[in-house]
Amino acid sequence: MMNAHIITIGDELLIGQVINTNQATIADRLNEIGVDVTEMTTVGDDTEAILAAFTRAWESAGAVIVTGGLGPTHDDITKSAVCRFFRTDLIPDANVRKQVALILNQRNFPWTDAAEAQAMVPRNATAFPNPVGTAPGLRFDGENRWFFVLPGVPFEMKEMVDAWIVPFLRQHAGENVIRHRTLRTTGIAESLLAQQLGDLDQILQGARLAFLPSTMGLRLRITVHARTAGEADRIVAGVEERIRAKASTYIYGTGEEELEEVVGRMLTERNMTLAVAESCTGGFIAHRLTNVSGSSAYFTYGAVTYSNESKMNILDVPSSVLGAHGAVSRETAEAMAAGIRKKAGTDIGLATTGIAGPTGGSPEKPVGLVWIACADAAGVVSVKFMFGEGRLRVKERASQSALDLVRRRLLGIE
Amino acid sequence: MMNAHIITIGDELLIGQVINTNQATIADRLNEIGVDVTEMTTVGDDTEAILAAFTRAWESAGAVIVTGGLGPTHDDITKSAVCRFFRTDLIPDANVRKQVALILNQRNFPWTDAAEAQAMVPRNATAFPNPVGTAPGLRFDGENRWFFVLPGVPFEMKEMVDAWIVPFLRQHAGENVIRHRTLRTTGIAESLLAQQLGDLDQILQGARLAFLPSTMGLRLRITVHARTAGEADRIVAGVEERIRAKASTYIYGTGEEELEEVVGRMLTERNMTLAVAESCTGGFIAHRLTNVSGSSAYFTYGAVTYSNESKMNILDVPSSVLGAHGAVSRETAEAMAAGIRKKAGTDIGLATTGIAGPTGGSPEKPVGLVWIACADAAGVVSVKFMFGEGRLRVKERASQSALDLVRRRLLGIE
Repeated sequence: MMNAHIITIGDELLIGQVINTNQATIADRLNEIGVDVTEMTTVGDDTEAILAAFTRAWESAGAVIVTGGLGPTHDDITKSAVCRFFRTDLIPDANVRKQVALILNQRNFPWTDAAEAQAMVPRNATAFPNPVGTAPGLRFDGENRWFFVLPGVPFEMKEMVDAWIVPFLRQHAGENVIRHRTLRTTGIAESLLAQQLGDLDQILQGARLAFLPSTMGLRLRITVHARTAGEADRIVAGVEERIRAKASTYIYGTGEEELEEVVGRMLTERNMTLAVAESCTGGFIAHRLTNVSGSSAYFTYGAVTYSNESKMNILDVPSSVLGAHGAVSRETAEAMAAGIRKKAGTDIGLATTGIAGPTGGSPEKPVGLVWIACADAAGVVSVKFMFGEGRLRVKERASQSALDLVRRRLLGIE
Repeated sequence: MMNAHIITIGDELLIGQVINTNQATIADRLNEIGVDVTEMTTVGDDTEAILAAFTRAWESAGAVIVTGGLGPTHDDITKSAVCRFFRTDLIPDANVRKQVALILNQRNFPWTDAAEAQAMVPRNATAFPNPVGTAPGLRFDGENRWFFVLPGVPFEMKEMVDAWIVPFLRQHAGENVIRHRTLRTTGIAESLLAQQLGDLDQILQGARLAFLPSTMGLRLRITVHARTAGEADRIVAGVEERIRAKASTYIYGTGEEELEEVVGRMLTERNMTLAVAESCTGGFIAHRLTNVSGSSAYFTYGAVTYSNESKMNILDVPSSVLGAHGAVSRETAEAMAAGIRKKAGTDIGLATTGIAGPTGGSPEKPVGLVWIACADAAGVVSVKFMFGEGRLRVKERASQSALDLVRRRLLGIE
């Protein structure tokens, strides 16, 4: 089994200004293809420290993955350190140059000396043009070992790990097969789900299961080691079936699938449309829905009605309802859902109203209280939630519960 | 100046299941008291790997901070590894035992063998009872150097860093002061900003400057070492002044300040209100604005008008404009901005329309093309942007440019 050493470079990491998410992203991807990360090192923008880390990693790991310090400015010294380490110099690369020009052109930026520098790569490296930025990836080949250098900007790094390093190492990493499958749940606490699953040994039969909680819900990750892909897939499928038999209604998707994609697909299949009226979620549900390509087919209109006036003027919520029950109430939520549905002429109207905090709470209506309502041809349903403290967490939890309410309505789950 | 090496231990880090926030927390705290973190190492629950990391760190650092693997379960091997490293054995500690009993009692947990094990500490260590958990902190003293061991649970670790390590090292780390200041920019590429700043030596005069790029813009981080706080502050202020003299219009904030907070404060100061009409940004601008507590004072209404119908019905965009110029055009953007401003009765109307992709592009209107318009009492201005590929990145960049357009209008910057 191949082992890997991840080296992340940047002063911003050593002073604690930036949390190192790149390490976890790379480790997760390598783990999925059966490459064992045995060490991670972080050093600053300092040539001697970088060279010492390179030396140590290259002596002990089958794959070395380096990120950071590949940009065009003075503090980006990784490329020169790599040249020193592999005793080479920089030469122009026509493919990289073309890609840098394309990216600058897309963004309407002029060609500069810095761009020219980005198009230079070490003589004995294989360069991988950056699909979404200007710093190319670099690969040096040793004897049955590989040294990769990537830019540190997380989304650029991630694109290149997925498009380049993972396929390359999958080919070179050998025989062992690891399979992961993640089931995504929402609307149930970790301890309750564990209770509902019952005897884990019976469900797992040798496989491993991790509970991964987040604001948006709980992911269940099944891990299986096997000698062949067929065997691994068979074991995973069995575990998944036994979990679903115990907790199917809470599982909305698998893998990296987001709830907004699931709801979008269900609406598309049913040829239905959706409009959203948001108070406390403040546009976050619309943002999530429109993160899905093609969402314009079913999502036509979202209204962020933060004030009482806009609830009345835009959604026709009666002032008597707001007066009698307040903006955060079952009655207002239901009037918002029915109002946006009528206004937009959609099949479904979804609405949220609550107290995201940190201010605005009271003993009767504390921070974290959110009413969610869903209107469709059959009428209006509404649910009360208590999401606790934390403005952004309240928005996230409320958006997830709102989308889940649509999913449950469409599937006829109570 | 004292340097430090942080070692984090845990298999969950090496498989990418958990993002390593402990490193950043510790680094941030040490940095504040003038201790320079020069390296961070992460290894798994593996005695040989742990001992190798200890050896390397203890040879080169004035302070070694170790976290993780101090718990009571089978995979927690840090305490035995520490005993091997410092050639010592475990003895009971009365103070620690009392604290463990107190914590268990608070949580209504019984005394067990695991609790007994937590109360044992290495013979030549100084133990620090855990104020919020059961695993104590440990300190070993070398010649003018210190080796700390902490539990890995983030909030326990943090408590002990603040209550124990920071005061201890502040006493022992000597005189040095480090100051950082971050200036946040948007709307200018890294290479262009570097060009605009010109001769960095003249600007920095011995200070350090890091360029930290992200989708939302570029941060400039100034770092200064000095003997006194007053001297450090004076040097930082000088560097900031020289940077602002070259690039003031691109700098929207400092530190951790987000552009939506800056715009919110400017609106509040001017007693002005804002409404937003979003097509390609799909609610993300409203989401960002409503992430700021108190935003209901100036942000009254957001409309996510994804379809042509909703642009006409909700914003009164004339069908002739949509017919002649299309939904993604200067004319539609300006009609949307003027429309939302009128509809909501606000001082400012902001609008976005563009092609977020991955589908919907054409040679004349490629993916990444976004028109942004801002309407106020003086009229409507609009700007064309090319943001490249990536649906979420297009939304992020467009939201940032849109908020920056409001900032520039309010400040009278062209």
